[in-house]
Amino acid sequence: MQRILSTELPAHIGSAVRVAGWVHRRRLLKSVAFLIVRDRAGLTQVVVTDPGVRAQIEAVGEETTVEVTGEAVANTAAPAGVEVVEPLLRVLGAPAEPPPFDLFRPELGATLPTQLDHASLSLRHSTRATALRLSAAAAAGFRSTLDSLGFVEIHTPKIVASSTESGANVFAIDYFGRPAFLAQSPQFYKQMMVGVFERVYEVGPVFRAEPHETGRHLAQYTSLDAELGFVGDHRDVMAVLTDVIRGMVGATGLPAAMPAEFPALHFTEALKIAGADPDEPDLAPADERAVGEWALREHGSDFVFVTGYPMAKRPFYTHPDPSRPGYTNGFDLLFRGVELVTGGQRLHRYEDYVAALAARGEPLAPYESYVEAFRHGMPPHGGFAIGLERFVARLTGAGNVREVTAFPRDRHRLTP
Amino acid sequence: MQRILSTELPAHIGSAVRVAGWVHRRRLLKSVAFLIVRDRAGLTQVVVTDPGVRAQIEAVGEETTVEVTGEAVANTAAPAGVEVVEPLLRVLGAPAEPPPFDLFRPELGATLPTQLDHASLSLRHSTRATALRLSAAAAAGFRSTLDSLGFVEIHTPKIVASSTESGANVFAIDYFGRPAFLAQSPQFYKQMMVGVFERVYEVGPVFRAEPHETGRHLAQYTSLDAELGFVGDHRDVMAVLTDVIRGMVGATGLPAAMPAEFPALHFTEALKIAGADPDEPDLAPADERAVGEWALREHGSDFVFVTGYPMAKRPFYTHPDPSRPGYTNGFDLLFRGVELVTGGQRLHRYEDYVAALAARGEPLAPYESYVEAFRHGMPPHGGFAIGLERFVARLTGAGNVREVTAFPRDRHRLTP
Repeated sequence: MQRILSTELPAHIGSAVRVAGWVHRRRLLKSVAFLIVRDRAGLTQVVVTDPGVRAQIEAVGEETTVEVTGEAVANTAAPAGVEVVEPLLRVLGAPAEPPPFDLFRPELGATLPTQLDHASLSLRHSTRATALRLSAAAAAGFRSTLDSLGFVEIHTPKIVASSTESGANVFAIDYFGRPAFLAQSPQFYKQMMVGVFERVYEVGPVFRAEPHETGRHLAQYTSLDAELGFVGDHRDVMAVLTDVIRGMVGATGLPAAMPAEFPALHFTEALKIAGADPDEPDLAPADERAVGEWALREHGSDFVFVTGYPMAKRPFYTHPDPSRPGYTNGFDLLFRGVELVTGGQRLHRYEDYVAALAARGEPLAPYESYVEAFRHGMPPHGGFAIGLERFVARLTGAGNVREVTAFPRDRHRLTP
Repeated sequence: MQRILSTELPAHIGSAVRVAGWVHRRRLLKSVAFLIVRDRAGLTQVVVTDPGVRAQIEAVGEETTVEVTGEAVANTAAPAGVEVVEPLLRVLGAPAEPPPFDLFRPELGATLPTQLDHASLSLRHSTRATALRLSAAAAAGFRSTLDSLGFVEIHTPKIVASSTESGANVFAIDYFGRPAFLAQSPQFYKQMMVGVFERVYEVGPVFRAEPHETGRHLAQYTSLDAELGFVGDHRDVMAVLTDVIRGMVGATGLPAAMPAEFPALHFTEALKIAGADPDEPDLAPADERAVGEWALREHGSDFVFVTGYPMAKRPFYTHPDPSRPGYTNGFDLLFRGVELVTGGQRLHRYEDYVAALAARGEPLAPYESYVEAFRHGMPPHGGFAIGLERFVARLTGAGNVREVTAFPRDRHRLTP
């Protein structure tokens, strides 16, 4: 007999069935025992009256993997109106040791560090598993939106010869006896690939040796990167990003306030709304919150673009705003008052790269194979990077990205 | 006027159009000049008679990015039966320096090392770009097949505390002052996630400090990993893999000989067919070629499973063959005589892991957080890993995986 999933039971009422999964919970009453079996689709209620089977159930603790054969019968009091009666039970592995926390309760009682120490178990809890399913859905929404816009998926090196964004916060690696680094972003590679495909994206790990332990930073996270050529300026990039965000939120099925066009503010306006010093070179977290509140209040939007960040706070490859010296065509997208996406238009002329690196006192040599692309014809282009974990945390209201990451890495955590 | 792509031109015959792309080639005849513009979709032929525009074209070399406005007219001699006449030309970046090799010829003349040294340019050649498009299609086919079978996509740590497969060929990393390693595979994590979702997959980079420089090994490659629970044995894994391969080949649109069921041989049979010593513990490359030829000859198949590899040559987590001591439920899938996939059934009982590690003289401690999952209920399960670059190389007939990898990494190559 083929195994069926819990959600397929209603179609088999009156028939013999075989289900399999984990012992989610047992309720041992006087004359009857209920066994709740969890599979990848949901829960099955099994009704046990036979003393021999009851003894088996008493012997196997929660989380033991089992197979149950029996008859599916209608019962309006059971999950999805169906339960399995007259069961035979077979233990598939060995009887499980009791987990360090109950997995069948609505909330995981353990502290976050305890959950993370036992990630292979805590992730089985519905709250944690659901967050990871949403993460998978969001990544699929990212890809399908960009696929429909003519983007090509790429895979780029995670081991690089020189640090990409800056010298700070990189992990050093011994590469066949030579020094190398883990890539902080696929930035240079996705730009070079604009020269090949015009429009590219990558879903992959990036690495930051973050010295601070906060609820929004990880040493490894999943970056959703896109880059596109033949743009007028950063606004063409923002239009694609708006489509992508809509596709990602839509794929999760969760609600978010998204007007047809996301509101956009110049950086100097954002400082004003936040009541910050007009000479500030960046938005503080409190400023971002204030701008997020403004966007929801004035535009009914959970998302708001801040454009025109000052040159001083953006990487050297950022395209300046031709009409406003000192400011750039770089933007951030805030989601419910927290920076979710960084993006912008990039430089596309070789001489501009030479000048930009010189202006920052950086040598050209480490960037040689990157800037070569610009000597041989590159169109005006731009792109963006979305932190997947941060997106899911913000969407689900999780206070810490570690709650929505399978096996997080930070300064203090290298296992499991 | 909106930019249109080269492939959209036939729908605009008789209208003013705007196209943009790279100067692919120029043909400067006496009374007329032809400009071929390459965009992400294909080529556009532009006919130039105006002396001013001709002078512009003479000044901008191949690979310069340009925008052309003009009129689309029918011409059966032009690509797709349409060309652009009466053009106005605008250079979008700066005039490009001549590339170190011609990109418009049918074949790239440069040696592979020269191509790789200038990857941002060589990848613009149609042969190289096509291989990467096939790679993207194959990865999409992998995901869509598994999505349809109820698998969930996961992202797992690439920085790990201890080496996964063995102590050899790992890259060491300085992790906040502590030693750590780059993950050689997501093996342990995907197994732990079977406990959460039953069926999981990951598309991501893996790292091997390969000391040898061969045409089939890279220091970083893209691994297509899948793992599924509640299997009878390895044959259920092979059935899913067969669907996946069919989905990947189908997504590329390239031909491969695939019967309804892929032929499968026990390891001992494979040795016989190859005429190898029956005491050999593994298949040599020549043996794999012989088995591949047998599969094509006897079964009309480019793919053939070899099952039951000896324990001695498989990792400690491999499930033994219960009916044949010394052999395992591990398999390889050969594609045209080369190993493409390694997979099998895994151990699922905690005591079996303790015994397997002890039998190999390995301490349990480094595996503590991995084997914890097995103490708390894990179903019989198995999985496989496909090397994406090797798949595309084999499918396209490329002799070296570096020909189908955007920016390959090996012992001697760390840039671009």
